[in-house]
Amino acid sequence: MAVNSPIPVASDLKPVAGIRLGHAEAGIRKANRKDVLVMELAPTATVAGVFTTNRFCAAPVQVCKAHLESSNMQAGPIRALVVNTGNANAGTGDAGLANANKTCEALAALLGCDASQILPFSTGVILEPLPVDRLIAGLPQAIANLQEDNWFAAAEAIMTTDTQPKAASASIVIGGKTVQMTGISKGAGMIKPNMATMLGYLAMDARIAQPVLDHLVKRTADKSFNCITIDGDTSTNDSFMLIATGAGSLEINDVDTPEYAELETAVIALAQKLAHMIIRDGEGATKFITVAVEEGSSVEECRKIAYSIAHSPLVKTAFFASDPNLGRILAAIGYAGVDDLDVSKLNLYLDDVWVARNGGRHPDYKEEDGQRVMKQSEITIRVRLARGNAEATVWTCDLSHDYVSINADYRS
Amino acid sequence: MAVNSPIPVASDLKPVAGIRLGHAEAGIRKANRKDVLVMELAPTATVAGVFTTNRFCAAPVQVCKAHLESSNMQAGPIRALVVNTGNANAGTGDAGLANANKTCEALAALLGCDASQILPFSTGVILEPLPVDRLIAGLPQAIANLQEDNWFAAAEAIMTTDTQPKAASASIVIGGKTVQMTGISKGAGMIKPNMATMLGYLAMDARIAQPVLDHLVKRTADKSFNCITIDGDTSTNDSFMLIATGAGSLEINDVDTPEYAELETAVIALAQKLAHMIIRDGEGATKFITVAVEEGSSVEECRKIAYSIAHSPLVKTAFFASDPNLGRILAAIGYAGVDDLDVSKLNLYLDDVWVARNGGRHPDYKEEDGQRVMKQSEITIRVRLARGNAEATVWTCDLSHDYVSINADYRS
Repeated sequence: MAVNSPIPVASDLKPVAGIRLGHAEAGIRKANRKDVLVMELAPTATVAGVFTTNRFCAAPVQVCKAHLESSNMQAGPIRALVVNTGNANAGTGDAGLANANKTCEALAALLGCDASQILPFSTGVILEPLPVDRLIAGLPQAIANLQEDNWFAAAEAIMTTDTQPKAASASIVIGGKTVQMTGISKGAGMIKPNMATMLGYLAMDARIAQPVLDHLVKRTADKSFNCITIDGDTSTNDSFMLIATGAGSLEINDVDTPEYAELETAVIALAQKLAHMIIRDGEGATKFITVAVEEGSSVEECRKIAYSIAHSPLVKTAFFASDPNLGRILAAIGYAGVDDLDVSKLNLYLDDVWVARNGGRHPDYKEEDGQRVMKQSEITIRVRLARGNAEATVWTCDLSHDYVSINADYRS
Repeated sequence: MAVNSPIPVASDLKPVAGIRLGHAEAGIRKANRKDVLVMELAPTATVAGVFTTNRFCAAPVQVCKAHLESSNMQAGPIRALVVNTGNANAGTGDAGLANANKTCEALAALLGCDASQILPFSTGVILEPLPVDRLIAGLPQAIANLQEDNWFAAAEAIMTTDTQPKAASASIVIGGKTVQMTGISKGAGMIKPNMATMLGYLAMDARIAQPVLDHLVKRTADKSFNCITIDGDTSTNDSFMLIATGAGSLEINDVDTPEYAELETAVIALAQKLAHMIIRDGEGATKFITVAVEEGSSVEECRKIAYSIAHSPLVKTAFFASDPNLGRILAAIGYAGVDDLDVSKLNLYLDDVWVARNGGRHPDYKEEDGQRVMKQSEITIRVRLARGNAEATVWTCDLSHDYVSINADYRS
């Protein structure tokens, strides 16, 4: 079960005017499970995305980037997104690209638009051919059940090793105009997004100019999906998409406005919620850990140290065991690659417990205090570097037997 | 049990003239186990070392560096090394430094030399005060059993979570003169040396000038201990020491000689053997994996990719499960941080099986072939980048349930 993350309630997930969702059981990898999702957009919609930096980026990621670019060049707005699970269509060479394009063509024919107005996404096993015929055969079923009020099923349809669907809604009133937003995400393993999570979609009914949305998607990813890690494995398929349907009353054409600032805050908050859901449901996770590095000389060095802690198998297993073997955190800070770090000024806290002062064990630190915090399911590691004002936060989980079991058994 | 690595036979470990070893049960952390080792050197000996790059380097590492430097400045040769297990004396601040110096002073008084002629080493738990009084109380016992023929016990005395002692001997005849060499090492966890392994000592009876030994220790570390990783955690205490006692007949004063070249080959071979023993006995290891990256444009990028594969929890768990989920290797190559990597030219092999050609699954690749190799206990992953002539090899092990158990339980 996910850490302190109840399963979303379908009725809490609010429709967003201008986007309809439909799903199918196409038998991509296994029978009798939702494995295809279609999201159909109003013609007024703008879409922006960020994608994995993995050089082995999947075929659909390459097609998405090309279609977003041609859409921005006035080829016509993006009209639908299509997602399949069970197969990542990555490491599949030219055949993989052809299959991603075929998928777009098939959906475009059904919706009466151009293939370049479709964005395709895949998630699942790498290096295996996409069963494109089964995927295409499932599309009419997905279109048949397109509904605005279908977010819960949509969240289910993009799950792989996730133990539960991830979705949340929020609304905000800006200048008297209400913006409704709802998002879904999936994660579980191969999670150290470096642009975005494995898959995340956040839709709102505002009308937002493309350059504003392009700015917003980057800002949002950097404060949410780009700050989580489960196992340090950056996926080939990471994608985070922001959709503004244009069906609502709020319109934003400029980032230098108070309206934009208000909206950004709300979007980041919702994206963080979706990103945290991925960590809370990380493969084998039993604890939700916040790593906050403060007083750095740059955000980059704070992130380096935070990720070094969050990726250390020794730190992660100690948290799993609730063992305050906190020297492992110091070791991870020390090898993070900040070459001129003066550890004699460094302070380390576990929640409210001051563990290390000026680089050494705090004289008042007692093992039982560390033990008390380690037993919690939500823990904050705080590092103060005493060399500047920059800071960074990364969210992660522990490393348990179940992580090994899940990944040793996946596919079997 | 370690992977294809029988326990060394005591009688196979040959004495090296000019070095005597003694051990004690000092009760540093637990009673009734060898936890202190003293290595006493002939006055003719030269010593060179490489140490962890971890910014939280332990107090004894700092003292070692200072004493090696002052010894090179003619303060007098290094006369002894002292190692304790059970406590790393790292993250211990000024008190830790004082304790490392006290240890040197106590041993120097017993041996009749200066404290600066002693090199101290510690390994074990970080962030806990060193019980220096118990350590010092154990020194007379260690000195009482100093013997040349004590390498097996020495290897036992430096073990922590190692399941077996690691030691090997070799001899080489250069220009009619025999060089005898014997080494010991320890590892098991927190192993991704970045200068050297957690602890490794290699002694030979040649007489080698200090600048030559300084060169040799770096060359050797870069080809052996600096190419292994278990969990990517670079320890605070990594140290690899090369000792030339000067008691033998071979003398080398210049690296630009055929004698040096012959010696270097032999020393590297023995150091690789000791380094491989650490991987074979890695925490929870069931497989010994060689990652060879070839045809790179630089050694650095080959190492980046090799380490990315060797550190991926998803790759490591797939090897544990003997599951040919080899797309995970492509993903790890893709996120290694080689920004201009053209994956469409890349080839991947698992032993003799050609898995991916030109960035995609090889048309002749069959899952059962991958499966056959994955079931072996020794596996080579070979990546051909098709962008140059550089290459690098890294040795690692798989990630099993036992890794989690060992590290969740260590200290308890």
